[in-house]
Amino acid sequence: MQVINSVKEMKQVRQKLTGTVGFVPTMGFLHEGHLTLVRRAKRKNDVAVVSIFVNPTQFGPGEDLQQYPRDTERDLALLEKEGVDIVFMPTPNDMYPDSYNTWVETSGITKRLEGKKRPGHFRGVTTIVNKLLNIVLPHKAYFGQKDAQQLRVIQKMVADLNMHVRIVTVTTVREKDGLAMSSRNIYLNDEERKAALVLYKVLSVAEELYMRGEHDAARIKVKMTGLINKESLAKIDYISIANSDTLEELTYIDHPALISMAVKIGTTRLIDNRTIG
Amino acid sequence: MQVINSVKEMKQVRQKLTGTVGFVPTMGFLHEGHLTLVRRAKRKNDVAVVSIFVNPTQFGPGEDLQQYPRDTERDLALLEKEGVDIVFMPTPNDMYPDSYNTWVETSGITKRLEGKKRPGHFRGVTTIVNKLLNIVLPHKAYFGQKDAQQLRVIQKMVADLNMHVRIVTVTTVREKDGLAMSSRNIYLNDEERKAALVLYKVLSVAEELYMRGEHDAARIKVKMTGLINKESLAKIDYISIANSDTLEELTYIDHPALISMAVKIGTTRLIDNRTIG
Repeated sequence: MQVINSVKEMKQVRQKLTGTVGFVPTMGFLHEGHLTLVRRAKRKNDVAVVSIFVNPTQFGPGEDLQQYPRDTERDLALLEKEGVDIVFMPTPNDMYPDSYNTWVETSGITKRLEGKKRPGHFRGVTTIVNKLLNIVLPHKAYFGQKDAQQLRVIQKMVADLNMHVRIVTVTTVREKDGLAMSSRNIYLNDEERKAALVLYKVLSVAEELYMRGEHDAARIKVKMTGLINKESLAKIDYISIANSDTLEELTYIDHPALISMAVKIGTTRLIDNRTIG
Repeated sequence: MQVINSVKEMKQVRQKLTGTVGFVPTMGFLHEGHLTLVRRAKRKNDVAVVSIFVNPTQFGPGEDLQQYPRDTERDLALLEKEGVDIVFMPTPNDMYPDSYNTWVETSGITKRLEGKKRPGHFRGVTTIVNKLLNIVLPHKAYFGQKDAQQLRVIQKMVADLNMHVRIVTVTTVREKDGLAMSSRNIYLNDEERKAALVLYKVLSVAEELYMRGEHDAARIKVKMTGLINKESLAKIDYISIANSDTLEELTYIDHPALISMAVKIGTTRLIDNRTIG
């Protein structure tokens, strides 16, 4: 496994690769969700490239950039075990030199949900993903369904800018009890870990209501809100039932819908989602 | 010569090309300046691709998008004669479908000169060039020095976004009397055509002053302004003497400098520039 730390070297190495390249961009502190993407990339391509880069431009002021968990040694051991060919770990200064001044921004879909709660977040995401795709030039890039809006934003950017890469989606990987895997789960203490299950639970309740014939989005949201509010450690940031493609809020679910939410458990902000219909 | 009108087809054709690809993006109505770029691209690469696309997003309200000169038949004949391999002529709707929503923007250097006078212009330029480079995936792309600021903006975008292409600069091509070639010269009537020579003349005067030891930018600008104001059909939009790399205005010329200007001749806005030092 080759570990590359500079943009220049990664581009040089890329020029010499033959066959198809599968790419998994990550912020490190890898969990089973990442590894599922990595295995898919490995199985479906001649060369598997994984990047580890905690991208400063997608964190807002007061967010957890500084405390974001990092464990490079463990990450590299995990990736080695999966048979990854290349790990790209650039420095922040190499990705964003002092004179850095170019931004890739997708409007519309980024104004809702996470984008509304975290202004500038998606501009950071589209910019770094655009840069990484330009450096690694993969045939396919793999993203998890857990970050449902991010996935749609990246698909939109790739389509709008006519990039050659194919974006592949992989289902959210969960703990045995249903909690969606996230590097941020490490922030939770035992009590919070139990409380965090409420996200999964209310998604299941919402789906069940829908399956039983409830298509009124407001009424499903009321049920979800009530259940989350019963959990004293949980505080709702948003709950959304939206058109699965455009992420516009639905009043009546007559179209595939994305139920998504952000909930603070103690001081940790978690997101989760499910597609219905 | 293959003429391609759809993005999808261009991408498919690109995948099958072998060897190096040289690319010249144009807005059509080709003149000797364009053809110089085309010849360079043809001579230095295995495959030469030229695009013709009048990009609506780089024109501001009240600018000349509607009246911008077009003559596709003549353009194609000229390119055929130069031995161009592929002409890419997408439709506006294919490049910017109704749902289009992604923008590439380079800050800093775009706030000055043309960017200051034409708000949004460079956002349109960086977005279309980014898209075209993604579609055509050239090894080298060719731009004229006449659009000096545009050239620097594109170089900055390519560097910031880690794009693989190499940007090649070609010297401004001029009419026999010195007027820089431009598709917009067609707007000039006979009297205006004579008056338009003032741009070239004052650049020569400025260079001569500098060569004779005048390094005070303000004093050179005063001379230039005086000469242009003597020409009754000419109206200065801006005159700049700036650091050739950053385009920051200089008070004392102690560094390679770009002398640039925009001048209206009648209703036609022309630009020209020269590098000194």
